[in-house]
Amino acid sequence: MTEPLRVTVWGENVHEREEEHVRAIYPEGMHAAIAAGLSATLGDRVAVRTAVLDEPEHGLPAPVLAETDVLTWWGHTAHDRVSDEVAARVHDAVLGGMGLLALHSAHYSKVFTRLMGTSCSLRWRNDGERELVWTVDPSHPIAEGVAQPIVIEAHEMYGEVFDIPPPDELVFISSFAGGEVFRGGCCYRRGAGRVFYFSPGDQDYPIYHHPEVQKVIANAALWAAPAPDAPRTVPGSPESPVGWYAA
Amino acid sequence: MTEPLRVTVWGENVHEREEEHVRAIYPEGMHAAIAAGLSATLGDRVAVRTAVLDEPEHGLPAPVLAETDVLTWWGHTAHDRVSDEVAARVHDAVLGGMGLLALHSAHYSKVFTRLMGTSCSLRWRNDGERELVWTVDPSHPIAEGVAQPIVIEAHEMYGEVFDIPPPDELVFISSFAGGEVFRGGCCYRRGAGRVFYFSPGDQDYPIYHHPEVQKVIANAALWAAPAPDAPRTVPGSPESPVGWYAA
Amino acid sequence: MTEPLRVTVWGENVHEREEEHVRAIYPEGMHAAIAAGLSATLGDRVAVRTAVLDEPEHGLPAPVLAETDVLTWWGHTAHDRVSDEVAARVHDAVLGGMGLLALHSAHYSKVFTRLMGTSCSLRWRNDGERELVWTVDPSHPIAEGVAQPIVIEAHEMYGEVFDIPPPDELVFISSFAGGEVFRGGCCYRRGAGRVFYFSPGDQDYPIYHHPEVQKVIANAALWAAPAPDAPRTVPGSPESPVGWYAA
Amino acid sequence: MTEPLRVTVWGENVHEREEEHVRAIYPEGMHAAIAAGLSATLGDRVAVRTAVLDEPEHGLPAPVLAETDVLTWWGHTAHDRVSDEVAARVHDAVLGGMGLLALHSAHYSKVFTRLMGTSCSLRWRNDGERELVWTVDPSHPIAEGVAQPIVIEAHEMYGEVFDIPPPDELVFISSFAGGEVFRGGCCYRRGAGRVFYFSPGDQDYPIYHHPEVQKVIANAALWAAPAPDAPRTVPGSPESPVGWYAA
Repeated sequence: MTEPLRVTVWGENVHEREEEHVRAIYPEGMHAAIAAGLSATLGDRVAVRTAVLDEPEHGLPAPVLAETDVLTWWGHTAHDRVSDEVAARVHDAVLGGMGLLALHSAHYSKVFTRLMGTSCSLRWRNDGERELVWTVDPSHPIAEGVAQPIVIEAHEMYGEVFDIPPPDELVFISSFAGGEVFRGGCCYRRGAGRVFYFSPGDQDYPIYHHPEVQKVIANAALWAAPAPDAPRTVPGSPESPVGWYAA
Repeated sequence: MTEPLRVTVWGENVHEREEEHVRAIYPEGMHAAIAAGLSATLGDRVAVRTAVLDEPEHGLPAPVLAETDVLTWWGHTAHDRVSDEVAARVHDAVLGGMGLLALHSAHYSKVFTRLMGTSCSLRWRNDGERELVWTVDPSHPIAEGVAQPIVIEAHEMYGEVFDIPPPDELVFISSFAGGEVFRGGCCYRRGAGRVFYFSPGDQDYPIYHHPEVQKVIANAALWAAPAPDAPRTVPGSPESPVGWYAA
Repeated sequence: MTEPLRVTVWGENVHEREEEHVRAIYPEGMHAAIAAGLSATLGDRVAVRTAVLDEPEHGLPAPVLAETDVLTWWGHTAHDRVSDEVAARVHDAVLGGMGLLALHSAHYSKVFTRLMGTSCSLRWRNDGERELVWTVDPSHPIAEGVAQPIVIEAHEMYGEVFDIPPPDELVFISSFAGGEVFRGGCCYRRGAGRVFYFSPGDQDYPIYHHPEVQKVIANAALWAAPAPDAPRTVPGSPESPVGWYAA
Repeated sequence: MTEPLRVTVWGENVHEREEEHVRAIYPEGMHAAIAAGLSATLGDRVAVRTAVLDEPEHGLPAPVLAETDVLTWWGHTAHDRVSDEVAARVHDAVLGGMGLLALHSAHYSKVFTRLMGTSCSLRWRNDGERELVWTVDPSHPIAEGVAQPIVIEAHEMYGEVFDIPPPDELVFISSFAGGEVFRGGCCYRRGAGRVFYFSPGDQDYPIYHHPEVQKVIANAALWAAPAPDAPRTVPGSPESPVGWYAA
């Protein structure tokens, strides 16, 4: 009997409280919708909890991270309100083996930019235009069972150049009605952790209710999970005498 | 004083002879247009010759390959008329260090598929729709000075999934008016050789007269060139006694 | 209840029959030892069968490949006795999603070289010297639970330059007592299939009885397996009218 | 007439002043030896200046970086004495296109770890043992004309696991007399900049006087240089109205 995957869904939870049209889409918060999608898709294969910015330590004290296999991150307007201490703690947790799913505007979050080492800048336009999410690696586990393409009727445009390191695995590329393209599904291995960036969805659109988007996030959670008995520590630099590896 | 880059432009040269509307676009053959673009862009930095399918050994006897730094390849309707012997010779030349630019429908050529090891299949539709060629790696030498995006008013659609190995460097992604995307600018290192696949241009459109396309091909020729004094041989598997590397 | 992984272990089975010292190590053939290691390590998670060169169609008729999730390949002295037809069939099966583990001297097999597109040449010396197999990607599933390093008391040296495409994932690097290094654990994604090259073990040494080597091969079989419901076909190039993806 | 490459050699310059045996090897500082090697190898193709920790702004005020094509970095005992402000400035300069050569113990420098996003930890042992530096990508420009292998009679061991992102291009792998291996020549593209990590040389050994090491550093400087007319700025995230790219 396998233990369920432990996912923590982190939400900034600002737009939903301050803007009525966002609250109308996500009355209990975007994090609640993401969590519900994971539970609906994975059933008892997953145990989901949520955490938000305004909780103490943003809801991410060390014990929570220690019991998290995969963390999803959505933030946008309050990246700078995430403390450097918590950002460093999450960064370390990823290097120690925790999976990270960076969603949409999390491209500019402290955690993601520190993992990438680049500016993570991009083009954008919020005109509610059609996005098509194309799988370019159909045998990748994150694309398993996903529609080709995912059709998102209305979304914010994110366009190239996306200033990220070359992805270790590129799974999805989006096109927009205005003609732009975007590498919107990118895998990275960093330390012992796996990182997946997925560009849908902006707070102004009901994208986390989209079943195909939910499928991708669920697949990505399974993909990003560490081995059950992985050590979950960041290695140091041990001095190693000759033959240290011999019995 | 640097020697000029020696480029051989290979053309299948069938559509141009058999179809009047292609001949109207390329009265001297597609290979002639590609060669002219290289000369116009690179001037005396390049020495261009051409070769076509119907010449003996398809115009590619061993001495020609030995004096070729970069070979461009355009074929479509007659891939199977390229002899296995010449395909193997070109393959070996690439592994020995010759650069290869595989253009458009060369995705299905013997040389390219043997270098890739995959089916190189793709979606397509010849509706003369707008293609935008987006640079995703703006500091790559092949993208130097290239418009963002390249606008091609009318072209055949090539769409994902493109069944290629993950590119070693991905430079361009195209979108089409119909919504599809395509990894149309892909770099590979194979043996001592560099390979660049570039998806424009179909024979039905005047794409090799497009100055931005000419710029990309010229940049790619410079990028794919071997070092001037590189050995140009495919290595064997030498038995190597202990300490063979000592003086 | 998950179905067991279906592994076919292919062996050339020439050295074992013709050379007494090899037969002493592998009395029932190298393929039998590899199969036994898989069964011992994975238990009822795996269903193993074997096939050898001298069987009709080398033991690999289409129905066998259709029922094979992962194929392991060991060959050395008789690569050219594998028919082009069977090599092409195996190549297609990999592109369609079957996993392939290419073992040791399989670097020069028809199947592996056609998948790679390069010469796959390397340095070698058969002096029975110590090899250390170092994990460089400790969170990779193929390295899970594997000793750091694997100590192989005596083996043939394989050394760089190994003329392969840049691995999509590099898991192991070996060193030899004579000072050479070798990228001996390399992952590739080709078509829908996953390919793992693993450089141990030469027929002159009891390497497939080594528990750590068995562990790597078992991990790699799990890693290379296609999704249970994957289509297992090589895609063609479908003409796709505008909006083909709409309902 | 091409302008010379502008290289700034940065040195921590602590060991050389405080430890007599290091001063004996590098009487004018390690930075002076690295600079001399570049000038000796590249002649008037390069214009070299040096900068050290104890200068104001560590010798790296904005105007110096603006006039630097490639920066080499050596630090070890005083990484934390580099101000966050200067580290951020150098990081930004790399993302804007300046090349960076991170040498030996610079693996733990603020600049390199921020570019990588990982711990950059490794095994080590300072026993003065033989290191062999093997080229695994012989057609890479950084390996051009370099001995196979480079023999370093005595050096500190750096061993795997080296906790770095998968290199975009892996050029060199070292072995040590004690049996360890190390990915000691790694290329990265980050933003518009190119980064090369090269593991030789520790301050206790005369490694920057070694002609083959000098050759590698010179090749790497040429490889890492931005295009002469590159913009040298880090992109922001521009809002882009529909059709912004049209004339």
